[in-house]
Amino acid sequence: MPETLYSLVELAQHIGVKQVDLEDVKIYGVASLENATANQISFYTNPKQHKFLSTTQAAAVILRAKDQAACHRPTLICEDPYLAFAKLTQLYNTRDSESNHGIHPSAIIASDAHIGKDVSIGAHTIIESACVIADRVSIGHNCTITGGCQIGADSYLAAQVVLLAGSQLGQRAIIHSGVVIGSDGFGFAPQGQRWVKIEQLGNVKIGDDVEIGANTVIDRATLDSTIVGNDVKIDNLVHISHNTIIGDRTAIAACVGIAGSTIIGADCKIGGAAMINGQIEICSDTTITAGTRVYQSIDKKGRYTSGLAPLEHHEWLRSTVYFKKLYKLLTKLTNSKR
Amino acid sequence: MPETLYSLVELAQHIGVKQVDLEDVKIYGVASLENATANQISFYTNPKQHKFLSTTQAAAVILRAKDQAACHRPTLICEDPYLAFAKLTQLYNTRDSESNHGIHPSAIIASDAHIGKDVSIGAHTIIESACVIADRVSIGHNCTITGGCQIGADSYLAAQVVLLAGSQLGQRAIIHSGVVIGSDGFGFAPQGQRWVKIEQLGNVKIGDDVEIGANTVIDRATLDSTIVGNDVKIDNLVHISHNTIIGDRTAIAACVGIAGSTIIGADCKIGGAAMINGQIEICSDTTITAGTRVYQSIDKKGRYTSGLAPLEHHEWLRSTVYFKKLYKLLTKLTNSKR
Amino acid sequence: MPETLYSLVELAQHIGVKQVDLEDVKIYGVASLENATANQISFYTNPKQHKFLSTTQAAAVILRAKDQAACHRPTLICEDPYLAFAKLTQLYNTRDSESNHGIHPSAIIASDAHIGKDVSIGAHTIIESACVIADRVSIGHNCTITGGCQIGADSYLAAQVVLLAGSQLGQRAIIHSGVVIGSDGFGFAPQGQRWVKIEQLGNVKIGDDVEIGANTVIDRATLDSTIVGNDVKIDNLVHISHNTIIGDRTAIAACVGIAGSTIIGADCKIGGAAMINGQIEICSDTTITAGTRVYQSIDKKGRYTSGLAPLEHHEWLRSTVYFKKLYKLLTKLTNSKR
Repeated sequence: MPETLYSLVELAQHIGVKQVDLEDVKIYGVASLENATANQISFYTNPKQHKFLSTTQAAAVILRAKDQAACHRPTLICEDPYLAFAKLTQLYNTRDSESNHGIHPSAIIASDAHIGKDVSIGAHTIIESACVIADRVSIGHNCTITGGCQIGADSYLAAQVVLLAGSQLGQRAIIHSGVVIGSDGFGFAPQGQRWVKIEQLGNVKIGDDVEIGANTVIDRATLDSTIVGNDVKIDNLVHISHNTIIGDRTAIAACVGIAGSTIIGADCKIGGAAMINGQIEICSDTTITAGTRVYQSIDKKGRYTSGLAPLEHHEWLRSTVYFKKLYKLLTKLTNSKR
Repeated sequence: MPETLYSLVELAQHIGVKQVDLEDVKIYGVASLENATANQISFYTNPKQHKFLSTTQAAAVILRAKDQAACHRPTLICEDPYLAFAKLTQLYNTRDSESNHGIHPSAIIASDAHIGKDVSIGAHTIIESACVIADRVSIGHNCTITGGCQIGADSYLAAQVVLLAGSQLGQRAIIHSGVVIGSDGFGFAPQGQRWVKIEQLGNVKIGDDVEIGANTVIDRATLDSTIVGNDVKIDNLVHISHNTIIGDRTAIAACVGIAGSTIIGADCKIGGAAMINGQIEICSDTTITAGTRVYQSIDKKGRYTSGLAPLEHHEWLRSTVYFKKLYKLLTKLTNSKR
Repeated sequence: MPETLYSLVELAQHIGVKQVDLEDVKIYGVASLENATANQISFYTNPKQHKFLSTTQAAAVILRAKDQAACHRPTLICEDPYLAFAKLTQLYNTRDSESNHGIHPSAIIASDAHIGKDVSIGAHTIIESACVIADRVSIGHNCTITGGCQIGADSYLAAQVVLLAGSQLGQRAIIHSGVVIGSDGFGFAPQGQRWVKIEQLGNVKIGDDVEIGANTVIDRATLDSTIVGNDVKIDNLVHISHNTIIGDRTAIAACVGIAGSTIIGADCKIGGAAMINGQIEICSDTTITAGTRVYQSIDKKGRYTSGLAPLEHHEWLRSTVYFKKLYKLLTKLTNSKR
């Protein structure tokens, strides 16, 4: 597909850099320092890439003033090259053009569903009764939106997304393929030797500007709502249980599991494969590092870690044997000192 | 969607509570103590909710006799309010009405598939040759059921479920969206520098009253069957490998992985994000807590845990350095005592 | 479905065993020692199955010379019975016959997509503009292949696979149900109190002979490509982030998460539920055991493990308390020795 053409001058304006002596070269896209061609723009923030500053073929490089001397190509200087890069990627994004395909004739839309203006709906997608799809929403192929769901304006659903049970999405949501929102929470009451299912009667409410990664699942509440705040970013293969509440701007990396009824504050960062117990509370501005298991509430903001760095297997075998004996050994050593 | 109306007296009868002086008020549904309105019923079991007993607007509250005094609204007294609550949720569940939609004309059903009485099949769902779908089964939209699969009576499959390779589901199954049952187990034999695929020739057999959460995967056996017992409850994003056997009534929380050929007994509880090695055996009545890694067989029933509670990151850095040195330190200390 | 019939003699030839005195019995399939009938062939490698050598009903058993005496049935002797078994499973695999179904009339294929010879495309599958589908590719039902994707010859996609954003698959790929390839990487630049999305402009390139398990996700690169080498085998529910590079023949078990821009060498084995940090490098021939967390680069090949074996819960409670105090205790003990 042909990429959009902007001139270097236009790009500089877009990221708010005032530069006078730039050539008016057409830029086909953004590329890494290593791979950029003479019609691509690049950026520099990661010291591991420093060697490429003197070899890159990029039309221009966005960087901080202190790095300008090392770069043999034209530069655009700003204080936050990573943010500038993010803004440039949006110019070259093709999602919007791809999604502008109208309503495919094979889509099945209930007669009482409300469909806003300029909505795109993919092939074989099903939208059930009483759904409300706001203006400029784009829904991919093979999606299933069951009765009573709501999707806010300018939202984008990729292919094969499932929305269930009256789930509500805010504006500008980006929901990736394979996501399931509104599935049953996991709730059973024991009765003698049997499990009695607790039907999940609530729903999921998701704020504005939320992104949810591929194959992630967000269960609906038993009662009331599972709540995801505004500007929350969730990666792939994340599990969010019923009645979880996630505060604004919190970011959750891939493979995280959050058990039921847990409340996570605003501006938290949850690293990949972290596991968070149910019915606890994590205060705002907390960072949970990758792979950390959180068993209890955290009421002091900060950065928390559990887990152990890997050892070579034979060393690990010895260490874990010691760990198992730790109680006895330390007790013995402590006692013998008295 | 309008909720079903029952009177308080009918609800009391449904949960087996004999109460004489209840008003015949109509109840629209079940709600939490905090959010219930005057036409909703609520329940109390969690001490964290105690403060709401004196403020709730619920038409009535289900609770234990000892908690009655604290509640300012009419009460229904029973020994297990949580179980009573579970039973009430079933009255207000709308899954059954939603699923009663007949066979959608866009569904593609092989001419030699057997379809029972009162079966519902969603839009764009595909049912291949020689499948047997029993009476009153409800299958959602965009599902794929390949050749020779069997689904027992009164089972419910949500949207976008995949059943493969002659998988067999028992009666009253509840299978959530994105579940894949019967995919290839992960098996390869090394031959020099290459992997030779071991084709997976078995299937998956699932008992009665099993529930499986969204985006969970159950692989078929290499030979014979991967087996899930009766009344087993499995949460979201769980991985169950080929030739695993899971005993009756075992409950498995989200994000768990169980490697190949492992045998798990009956009445086990596996906490979220637990990881269970292949080719081991876990005896009945075992609880594996959340996040625990199980490397070896467990032959004594009980409650097992691994992992470490999180520390603030700077403390953790110090502790793990010590852990790495544990072998040397303890050896030195122990030796120096002699 | 009727299974293919081969004679014992044909099977012996297929696995390269010269045997003169075999009966010309027809073999319906491969089965375990325990469950094989008189028209099935079996194999023996696992000592746990030793007792079945004297009771099996199998028509013949593939085993090593040293185990022949213990077996009461005809034997086929070879040096690697497991590899021989793998080769036999391929004879009895029914995937190829199932996939030979042509192009279903309900599939929606863009007029400018290139479709090779003898391609099968399932019901309700969507193939967008500019895709290139090579000869003998089989694509299952309800798949979505968006614009510009390429699939190499003889590849097999099960039902409900999603390929996005110009992803490229090599030859002989096997992609299981629910897999998403080419979804957005997880990238945001902070701007004050907001996240600015970094649009993901790269793609995914996958080599030849790659297998990818159900519900696994591989994100496309921010710039350039996420790369999966030749003969890589990936299990279910694995997360592979943007710009990851995975070397040839590396095998990755289920529930693994690999964070962004990490480089994994060739011939590595990553155990189930392992978690690998972003922006690190793991050298070739490295084994990461199940459940291990890898925080830093590994530049020495070998076998690495973290994590702790489970303890009974009350023991674990004591041990972790000690772990938390480890720093203080060891400091005190060490100091007191001086």
